[in-house]
Amino acid sequence: MPKVSLKGQEMPESPIRKLVPFSEAAKEKGLKVYHLNIGQPDIKSPVAALDAVKNNIPEILEYSHSAGMESYRKKLAEYYQKNDIEVDMADIIITTGGSEALLFAMGSTMDNGDEIIIPEPFYANYNGFSVASGVKVVPVISKIEDDFALPPISEFEKLITPKTKAILICNPGNPTGYLYTEEEIHQLAELVKEHDLFLIADEVYREFTYDGGEHYSIMNVSGIEEHAIMIDSVSKRYSMCGARIGCVVSKNKAVMSAAMKFAQARLSPPTLAQIASEAALDTPQSYFDDVIKEYKDRRDTLINGLSQIEGVKIAVPKGAFYCIAKLPIDDADRFAQWLLENFELDGETIMVAPAAGFYSSPNVGITEIRIAYVLKKEDLIRSIEILKEAIKQYNNQ
Amino acid sequence: MPKVSLKGQEMPESPIRKLVPFSEAAKEKGLKVYHLNIGQPDIKSPVAALDAVKNNIPEILEYSHSAGMESYRKKLAEYYQKNDIEVDMADIIITTGGSEALLFAMGSTMDNGDEIIIPEPFYANYNGFSVASGVKVVPVISKIEDDFALPPISEFEKLITPKTKAILICNPGNPTGYLYTEEEIHQLAELVKEHDLFLIADEVYREFTYDGGEHYSIMNVSGIEEHAIMIDSVSKRYSMCGARIGCVVSKNKAVMSAAMKFAQARLSPPTLAQIASEAALDTPQSYFDDVIKEYKDRRDTLINGLSQIEGVKIAVPKGAFYCIAKLPIDDADRFAQWLLENFELDGETIMVAPAAGFYSSPNVGITEIRIAYVLKKEDLIRSIEILKEAIKQYNNQ
Ligand SMILES: Cc1ncc(COP(=O)(O)O)c(C=O)c1O
Ligand SMILES: Cc1ncc(COP(=O)(O)O)c(C=O)c1O
Repeated sequence: MPKVSLKGQEMPESPIRKLVPFSEAAKEKGLKVYHLNIGQPDIKSPVAALDAVKNNIPEILEYSHSAGMESYRKKLAEYYQKNDIEVDMADIIITTGGSEALLFAMGSTMDNGDEIIIPEPFYANYNGFSVASGVKVVPVISKIEDDFALPPISEFEKLITPKTKAILICNPGNPTGYLYTEEEIHQLAELVKEHDLFLIADEVYREFTYDGGEHYSIMNVSGIEEHAIMIDSVSKRYSMCGARIGCVVSKNKAVMSAAMKFAQARLSPPTLAQIASEAALDTPQSYFDDVIKEYKDRRDTLINGLSQIEGVKIAVPKGAFYCIAKLPIDDADRFAQWLLENFELDGETIMVAPAAGFYSSPNVGITEIRIAYVLKKEDLIRSIEILKEAIKQYNNQ
Repeated sequence: MPKVSLKGQEMPESPIRKLVPFSEAAKEKGLKVYHLNIGQPDIKSPVAALDAVKNNIPEILEYSHSAGMESYRKKLAEYYQKNDIEVDMADIIITTGGSEALLFAMGSTMDNGDEIIIPEPFYANYNGFSVASGVKVVPVISKIEDDFALPPISEFEKLITPKTKAILICNPGNPTGYLYTEEEIHQLAELVKEHDLFLIADEVYREFTYDGGEHYSIMNVSGIEEHAIMIDSVSKRYSMCGARIGCVVSKNKAVMSAAMKFAQARLSPPTLAQIASEAALDTPQSYFDDVIKEYKDRRDTLINGLSQIEGVKIAVPKGAFYCIAKLPIDDADRFAQWLLENFELDGETIMVAPAAGFYSSPNVGITEIRIAYVLKKEDLIRSIEILKEAIKQYNNQ
């Protein structure tokens, strides 16, 4: 029997995926499971975006341009300009989700064996894209005690080798909820200029910031035009994860021309979803105001609740919709499984993501979990009750 | 300025892409250009498939399962079973086009530096997927004189090295139009068994066969269950190229589990397009009968017309909707560009794909072009007139 690739074996299992059989078993036992583990928002997609699909279905569902529909790229460039990001349509390639944008960015900047430095904990699928691209992830630890702020630049510098080609950040962060300050972004900019590296910023949660914090894009930094590659997506912004539309944005022509080769090979991003995404650009500010108010409310509920559980430490999230909590337990992996297998509070339990899976370094974050606050407020309140009781019982075994 | 990847530079330009600026210039001059170069059918997508989208737009456009919507996979398995391909839903992963299925198949079976043998001329984007996967393409020449039949097995055997991991065929072939016989498929099956290789078959044109020829899938060969990986797509079958839905199918559990890792990293295939693709499975046979009658008619028109041009040799296509023609000219690359830059017949010209771009070996097929018969009959007739006159003038310069 022929052997599968090492790649296939190396690609790490997602930290959530291994728990799925346990959550399914729990549901089969009749338990209600609150999913604190997922990044799929429960917010409705903008009606106008979906109506646009309904009203504009073509007779022949054709390939679009490999860089995406021209009308969409044009309007998207205007959208960025309105948001003070000075790009034009030539700087944009529409991709199949931010996921594909990440793949294109890595493929266009790095060869087999090259290295990318990523502050951890990080979005677990960065591992998968790195393996697929033959790239080695070099983690630099950011700490819960600092709310997962940017690690000192000296820590990055220690890790730079002749193989280092890029630094990847996620801003605001999944799973950390951290929003990088303008100053931190400038520090990174200096670093990539000095060492001639690419700076890839995954900004798919850009709209979701709280407490007056403002998102500062790497595309706003002058002097790093040739270094900066922005990753974006409609998935979270418009609660249209299933559209599978994102983009890679850069002013570096060589990067864009390399990315175009990848784009041409796979022909085009999905046509119907581009129609929806183009229409979504007209979503009124009131939609976002409502959504952000809702998330802020949930975040506050979560933070308040968690901080009332003895021994729990949290990094207060300033953006996105995730929060990492450090629990007074021995091992979050075991605890997460135990929650699904051996625990219930009046027929209910919770599913959480053990945070160790978001770290690339071994034995880091083993008592931490990631909580996504994409549940209704009442459900969050109930989930926190369950968590509180669960910690008690777990430690009393 | 940081350097882009070698990958990005290595990825070959598509044979058509380089002509695009010339066709645009021709159009700007006011010329009408008949596009014999594209694989985008002009056939309408099944109405029921598009209506299904219209009538089933969800309130929240969510990620689907990473392997695709369960209801779709189930129904797709039934579709294959009806077509005598004995697979079930566990053997199927829904992908973003056949394109992504090819990427997953390569990524799951091959590591950096591994080799894949492909009969040439072949679909040019196999190059792009190979570069992206770090895989080396090893071409084996099939000949126009043989209608591009399978090269002798001994030719494959000469090319097998310890690095060889797979053989990739396209059946029916783009750009050749060749339909492999049952016997040829069995020869390949013996070969991959003997040398413990994967056999990847791109069967996206399966429905399009003429002259009573029947498509024989690698999934029908018993004894190579662990070797066979089938690539499929809704793009051509339902004229839904813009849906971006395909699949990778295999009974090899290790392959499927590796492919799932790639699938999970990119979260899910597009949701709306899956709704369309699921509904498309109910397309009545009459739709295909009509479509195939139309293509056969076009093919016959093309073949008849071409065979009346002196010095033109053709491989009669038995499937798909492409045809390779060998022209009595010095260089098809130059000729194709000349057609757009320096020629017109009453304000009209044609755009063709030079076939050299479909060969991986240098200096092969340099007088050949690929013609896609996705144009209406009248347009094909006119295109042949133009070609005839063009060859004359080109050679009289
Ligand atoms: C940080 C981050 N980047 C990228 C993505 C990819 O999203 P998509 O491919 O849906 O755009 C996600 C999805 O959860 C994410 O959390
Ligand atoms: C032979 C072959 N394979 C695969 C594809 C990829 O098609 P898609 O990604 O649209 O399924 C094409 C498209 O033209 C093709 O001709």
